[in-house]
Amino acid sequence: MHFISNSLKNYFSVILVLTGMHLFAQSSKKPNVIVIYTDDQGAIDLGSYGANDIYSPNIDQLAQEGTRFTQAYVAAPVCAPSRAALLTGRYPQNAELTGNTSAEPGSSGLPAEQYTLAELFKDNGYKTGHIGKWHLGMNEASSPNGQGFDYSFGHLRGCIDNYSHFFYWEGPNTHDLYENGKEVFYDGQYFPDLASDKAINYVEEHKDEPFFMYYAINMPHYPYQPTQKWRDYYKNMEKPRGDYAAFISTIDERIGFLIDKLDDLGIRENTIIIYQSDNGYSTETRAFGGGGNAGPYRGAKSSLFEGGIRLPTIISWKNHLPENIVNDEFLMNIDWMPTLAKLCKLDKIETEIDGIDMSGMIKHPNTASKRTSAFWKYGKQWVVRKDNWKLIGFPKDTSHKGELNLEEDALFLSDLSQDVSEMTNLASKYPEKVKELTQEFLKWKHGHEEDIPKKIEKVSNLAAGSTIKATSALNPSYNNADLLIDGKLGYTDYASGQWVGQEGKNLEFIINLNTEKAIKSISVNSLINSGNWIFPVNAMEISFSDDGKTFNSSKDIKRVENKAKTENSTERLTINVDKKSRFIKVKVEGIGNCPKGHPGAGFPAWFFIDEIIVE
Amino acid sequence: MHFISNSLKNYFSVILVLTGMHLFAQSSKKPNVIVIYTDDQGAIDLGSYGANDIYSPNIDQLAQEGTRFTQAYVAAPVCAPSRAALLTGRYPQNAELTGNTSAEPGSSGLPAEQYTLAELFKDNGYKTGHIGKWHLGMNEASSPNGQGFDYSFGHLRGCIDNYSHFFYWEGPNTHDLYENGKEVFYDGQYFPDLASDKAINYVEEHKDEPFFMYYAINMPHYPYQPTQKWRDYYKNMEKPRGDYAAFISTIDERIGFLIDKLDDLGIRENTIIIYQSDNGYSTETRAFGGGGNAGPYRGAKSSLFEGGIRLPTIISWKNHLPENIVNDEFLMNIDWMPTLAKLCKLDKIETEIDGIDMSGMIKHPNTASKRTSAFWKYGKQWVVRKDNWKLIGFPKDTSHKGELNLEEDALFLSDLSQDVSEMTNLASKYPEKVKELTQEFLKWKHGHEEDIPKKIEKVSNLAAGSTIKATSALNPSYNNADLLIDGKLGYTDYASGQWVGQEGKNLEFIINLNTEKAIKSISVNSLINSGNWIFPVNAMEISFSDDGKTFNSSKDIKRVENKAKTENSTERLTINVDKKSRFIKVKVEGIGNCPKGHPGAGFPAWFFIDEIIVE
Repeated sequence: MHFISNSLKNYFSVILVLTGMHLFAQSSKKPNVIVIYTDDQGAIDLGSYGANDIYSPNIDQLAQEGTRFTQAYVAAPVCAPSRAALLTGRYPQNAELTGNTSAEPGSSGLPAEQYTLAELFKDNGYKTGHIGKWHLGMNEASSPNGQGFDYSFGHLRGCIDNYSHFFYWEGPNTHDLYENGKEVFYDGQYFPDLASDKAINYVEEHKDEPFFMYYAINMPHYPYQPTQKWRDYYKNMEKPRGDYAAFISTIDERIGFLIDKLDDLGIRENTIIIYQSDNGYSTETRAFGGGGNAGPYRGAKSSLFEGGIRLPTIISWKNHLPENIVNDEFLMNIDWMPTLAKLCKLDKIETEIDGIDMSGMIKHPNTASKRTSAFWKYGKQWVVRKDNWKLIGFPKDTSHKGELNLEEDALFLSDLSQDVSEMTNLASKYPEKVKELTQEFLKWKHGHEEDIPKKIEKVSNLAAGSTIKATSALNPSYNNADLLIDGKLGYTDYASGQWVGQEGKNLEFIINLNTEKAIKSISVNSLINSGNWIFPVNAMEISFSDDGKTFNSSKDIKRVENKAKTENSTERLTINVDKKSRFIKVKVEGIGNCPKGHPGAGFPAWFFIDEIIVE
Repeated sequence: MHFISNSLKNYFSVILVLTGMHLFAQSSKKPNVIVIYTDDQGAIDLGSYGANDIYSPNIDQLAQEGTRFTQAYVAAPVCAPSRAALLTGRYPQNAELTGNTSAEPGSSGLPAEQYTLAELFKDNGYKTGHIGKWHLGMNEASSPNGQGFDYSFGHLRGCIDNYSHFFYWEGPNTHDLYENGKEVFYDGQYFPDLASDKAINYVEEHKDEPFFMYYAINMPHYPYQPTQKWRDYYKNMEKPRGDYAAFISTIDERIGFLIDKLDDLGIRENTIIIYQSDNGYSTETRAFGGGGNAGPYRGAKSSLFEGGIRLPTIISWKNHLPENIVNDEFLMNIDWMPTLAKLCKLDKIETEIDGIDMSGMIKHPNTASKRTSAFWKYGKQWVVRKDNWKLIGFPKDTSHKGELNLEEDALFLSDLSQDVSEMTNLASKYPEKVKELTQEFLKWKHGHEEDIPKKIEKVSNLAAGSTIKATSALNPSYNNADLLIDGKLGYTDYASGQWVGQEGKNLEFIINLNTEKAIKSISVNSLINSGNWIFPVNAMEISFSDDGKTFNSSKDIKRVENKAKTENSTERLTINVDKKSRFIKVKVEGIGNCPKGHPGAGFPAWFFIDEIIVE
């Protein structure tokens, strides 16, 4: 009796609510907006994006009920600038936040002057809520409440333990959970559930007024802490992929809870939902070197190859926007601000933004994107995208899918319509395109001449074109002796592929000049990078032979010891000779162990040489 | 009625149990042993040890019911070797574990050949259990089960998050909770409660057989995660002390649970309880630089001053050992093995140990300790203790209670009967005692000639005894210009107090020789430590004057640029002159910014000089 009366009551309530909401939705009420922003989720890490080993029915369903983008980007390959770009509609450089923010209490982040999505919606009469990760600054001005959110629940730093809500880095080990700027404790409670509950409460509380909720889900960012249910589900999958996949299903399940709540409240059709990942999957040590998957794309978190920035992106507004659409057009996270402004009929955005209103293309899927170009810049890396051409300066492949030659690939050109994997550098094939895109970059406010890779320095070397043979064991990682007589110096980066390196021991080579030549001097050029335990060569010894076999007698040996000038990044040690010879034996000595006072003192020191110059 | 009948039942049960146990205790049954080993608890961080800001009624009660030691030591100032010493009865050097173990899966720790307390008890028919932290190795041989424990529950690495049971360091972020070598998940459950429950279960399950339980409580080691109850209790106390104190009360409460259980089971009088901390409180960044308190003692975790190694230590065996005793005699954690063997009447320990049976002194509190000497060695630090004399080689004061002069305090002698705070170095006052203790150290198997601090190198300097004045701004941290003409070179440690340092900028001095002197050369000696951004001086300029005012004309200036040989830890730059002068102006130039290829490239480099040598 009790049960029945309650059920009947609920039945009538539901009808009333649905009817009411429907009428309301058709009226002047502005739509709600939920932006779900996940953390370090790889490019194909959803069932709907091609992962056949990941179970994500709720997000896949969301994609079915809207548009799934295959060519949507974020403006930075790491958390904080990606979020700054999302919230301001600007490139990180214009949002004045280009790297990850500090964890120090009180430290600054996104400048207060920056106009955010939250401020835009607030100015248009919306309630604004932030739930989840912030990572845009630790002082009040850059806090969620300082940046336009009426309500905020979550952690302020880059990652948390999901049970203790502590932030761990080098230290101190700090509790990091806040509600509207006030520290709150929920010891032992699973943060994804706490956030999910807060999100559900938020939409329930604001069901009758337009709201903007930024739901910054802190998964699948390390630490990989899925629920037991999903750990069990993936128990036969190898780690770290298994834990990562379980973490994605943990996200998916909670997004299901939220969408169910929107349905229950009858506000689903009056709510625009955007789903996007903030950057590619992490290959950091803290993430066991991986777990995520960028599918066909090269690169991961921190890289400007597609895998770092081209990510799962969905928009769904039931009954208002097309459903079951796969859109292959070019779009960026900075475009959401003007796009949402248009869809929600907000007042004009007064600030200068880099985003483009994409509402037309979303409403009419066969329309071409208004975006045909974009810029990225992160650390030393930069990108100019124009139509399908993409030029990367100083590319970095955190996914280690292929080798990069620092010299040849310092400018990396791809035609994405032909090679979405960016495995073949077309720079040398299309020099005019490189020039054109470089000029575009230099025209951009944040593109500078010093960002452009310089040519490798060439040296005149009598030995160029002849042969060189190592007569001592080479280090397997840096063993290309041919580099030593290629007439080119290396970039000052031992890992650039332009250096021959040795740890602790010495190296010895025989150069065969093919014919007897008059030799004035012999030099060896070495790298200085003591931070990486790399010291200049300590000494060089040379001797000569006409037959390549008899390098006789000690009196014939010329030796020079190094008087290094440590302010240079490379240095050249020269022996003057005045001799005709065909064969030259060169012995190069390192300093042996790292010197006293150096962190590596007593352990083997490295030396790296890029050229043995015969003049 | 219900209440009364239950009470009566309990009343009778208690009587029966007590009577039964008492008879049993008097019988042939061997006593149980519980060794409680806390983590990073400071020397006075208990009410009974003098902390008037910490509430620890249960541990204080335990002290009341037994002996509280005021001069009990651990054999190492950090976790792993302290634990290795406890479990083997040996100095860490003899236990073959002298530093903290690796967190790498499969990495080695305490060697399998080492004979542990667990093996000793097991060989004597005991059940053996480990609960809490291990930190003695990650491979099977060095695991709890591999080292003699029938049962083990806890974490294998140095610290954990108490809710997720993850180990956080540089990475990877790893779940670290095991039961008998099998990974177990208790997501979100508070580890101190899990461990407390396991400990209580363990004693309940083994109440009828003799057991040895090593209860390695992982608190108050960072992360500071007390319960809400205790956070509230200390809410007005400043952090990190407040969190630390709350964490101690969290320990105390759980020790209360265990003792209550022993009482309930009626086995309290048949159970020997030892309580000790593994090393002094931490001053690491991860611990907010502190939280604990060593009271009168100098030093903290990682230091061989008393504060790092002299710690709260209690033994209680009700009705068998004296109660309410404060024992000021000398005792070490390595002494527990032979002491427990004696108290429990175990078979003879077959291995060679460093511990001494202290049972006599514990039974008869007015007896002098059989221990009159001991050795410690940790990193570069070492200690010889003989009677009340304590000599430290290369002391390190992690508590920063006072200055240490690297030269004068390289050997630090204290008479603990007069100066338990070790604030006054008596080495120069009692050179014979220093010599005697140094000889003792060298007689010890692990004391070597190279461990003995060498005298500072002296140089002949015409300027010694004259005056020097800086004419450019000095760096406030390294500004003692007088050092530059003291005729002594520095240890190769920029922070030793023997160096004048400058960052980015140059330095200029005027030396007044008091009378005109014939000068043959002027040298400056500088430090090389590029890992700390310290580079040799780049150039030196000198000029002369007879009045200290007019140092005229550029032709008068002599300049030399440096040709550094980076394999040395210091180097000398010399200008040969042949001149008589009273005043010398010396300008010393650093390299400016760190060189390319160095991690600090583009940022100001340091230089440090210890002497301007006038010959």
